Amino acid sequence: MKVLITTVPFGKKNRLPLDLLEKSNIDYVINPLGRKLTENELAEMVPDFDVIIAGTEPITDYVIECGKKLKMISRVGIGLDSVDLISARNRGIAVSYTPDAPAPAVSELTIGLMISLLRSVQISNMKIHNGSWNRYFGRRLSECTIGIIGMGRIGSRVLHHLSGFGCKQILLNDVRENYNINESETIKWVEKENIYNEADIITLHLPLTKDTKNMICREELLTMKKDAIIINTSRGGIINENDLYEVLKNDHLEGAAIDVFDNEPYFGNLQTIDNCLLTAHMGSMSIDCRTRMEIEATEEALRFIKNKKMLSCVPEDEYSVQEEGL
Amino acid sequence: MKVLITTVPFGKKNRLPLDLLEKSNIDYVINPLGRKLTENELAEMVPDFDVIIAGTEPITDYVIECGKKLKMISRVGIGLDSVDLISARNRGIAVSYTPDAPAPAVSELTIGLMISLLRSVQISNMKIHNGSWNRYFGRRLSECTIGIIGMGRIGSRVLHHLSGFGCKQILLNDVRENYNINESETIKWVEKENIYNEADIITLHLPLTKDTKNMICREELLTMKKDAIIINTSRGGIINENDLYEVLKNDHLEGAAIDVFDNEPYFGNLQTIDNCLLTAHMGSMSIDCRTRMEIEATEEALRFIKNKKMLSCVPEDEYSVQEEGL
Repeated sequence: MKVLITTVPFGKKNRLPLDLLEKSNIDYVINPLGRKLTENELAEMVPDFDVIIAGTEPITDYVIECGKKLKMISRVGIGLDSVDLISARNRGIAVSYTPDAPAPAVSELTIGLMISLLRSVQISNMKIHNGSWNRYFGRRLSECTIGIIGMGRIGSRVLHHLSGFGCKQILLNDVRENYNINESETIKWVEKENIYNEADIITLHLPLTKDTKNMICREELLTMKKDAIIINTSRGGIINENDLYEVLKNDHLEGAAIDVFDNEPYFGNLQTIDNCLLTAHMGSMSIDCRTRMEIEATEEALRFIKNKKMLSCVPEDEYSVQEEGL
Repeated sequence: MKVLITTVPFGKKNRLPLDLLEKSNIDYVINPLGRKLTENELAEMVPDFDVIIAGTEPITDYVIECGKKLKMISRVGIGLDSVDLISARNRGIAVSYTPDAPAPAVSELTIGLMISLLRSVQISNMKIHNGSWNRYFGRRLSECTIGIIGMGRIGSRVLHHLSGFGCKQILLNDVRENYNINESETIKWVEKENIYNEADIITLHLPLTKDTKNMICREELLTMKKDAIIINTSRGGIINENDLYEVLKNDHLEGAAIDVFDNEPYFGNLQTIDNCLLTAHMGSMSIDCRTRMEIEATEEALRFIKNKKMLSCVPEDEYSVQEEGL
């Protein structure tokens, strides 16, 4: 069996996943381009391989069709928007993922992005490095109404991190019905439209699906407070990038922090907006979480190769989402 | 009575402090230079005024001597290193401050700076805005040993904020004996040398005094872990700036976040270091804390002017610190 590792970097901070493959005498190739592959690049590479240890590159019906030997896709991460699950199932290809590993890193980064935006940290830093000194006013988390849309593994951790800040009001919403968090004086479940209207900080922790694609466009952005901030560390495409650019350019919203993009690497007009804090899809990139993701995905690939019971097959409801929506 | 307001901005986000002065028919002048005054500038301005509503500009023996009519100094903030308290007392000048107001803003910013540094947020942001895409590995708060030096109003809030992150080890130290926080499995009081040696993140929440001036120089920085990060949102001068520059330049320490400087506005060689996150003394600059500081300082000045009992005179131990050290 031959394994194609498309996600990069891989095995860089901790060699263990590569060691695991080598100990089992598995031939592997790491993505030679060193960046996210396009559909065509992947389609060209895939015919030779039995297993893909995959990042977020598009594993479309076409790619899967080209993968004549392909038997298994092991996603390093949680999002499945990049994989055509139905096509994989129709061709008998197993798909696994690592749903728990990224959460601690994404949720911490989200809190850091909130405070940076509220206090204009990145702007002050850029100005001082360029030789000018400006003191910016800001706001504190505890004064703000915070809206969390998506209360799965990551959103619920964001809520927990906020517990040490004494926030006055936290509004929760999810596209799936998993209302397993109790309301309190400061924590309320609401419609997402209430979050758009009332929150000072809006943070998204959703999968990218038919239903969440372009969930937040010009119209939704304009219903937000003029001084609201919005954070997306989940998936590109949920906030419409061009609409966000237009709205920020016209001084609606106080700022945005965007870690995920329609196309990555991202080169687009948000680069020209100072109060748009941009990071390079680094949500899960803490050494420990990334290592855990790589190890889990590799172990699952090895279980498949050795005909052992797989432990983190993508569950049925992820297939339903792709077939029918949420 | 005439009031000189040296701290800027003042009354900008909330006009109430200016309204209070106007309602009491008090003549006031706001620092016409719009930036932190030097000793000589202040000495030239001060002779005409009875009260200073002061920022962090140097209110030295010489300034106080020039202030022939000066009767009261009302500091907007907590630090008193800028005021020669002994000289003020010897001339019968009352000094007040606002010790509680800045803490919530400084402590939140500190958490934001920790996460930004750990995850290279400001570097990724700068790179993307300049057209390049780099994914940086980082670490999480909960993996790190965190050292807090200074457990007064601000340090203890930092500790509280960290409670929602599940940190594995938090080491505490203070130059004054106020060990009012209980140890636990994860929280320990230690010598500051232990913090230098063992912490992954070191954050300072100390006053600037004879004893803390240059407390952290080359030698101390080099005893820190090669990949440690250090944060100073307290007072410039506690970390020696030139030594920090040399050490960062030689790739010891993973990064630093500095909000306070020997001379402000700061223009110095830390500007050339990408992994030195620089902010413009914005610790207390949340709108609510800054407003509260300005109102409290103005109300205290008005109490003095109207011969009412003052409520936040600088306590005796601050005078002792300036006379004898900590």
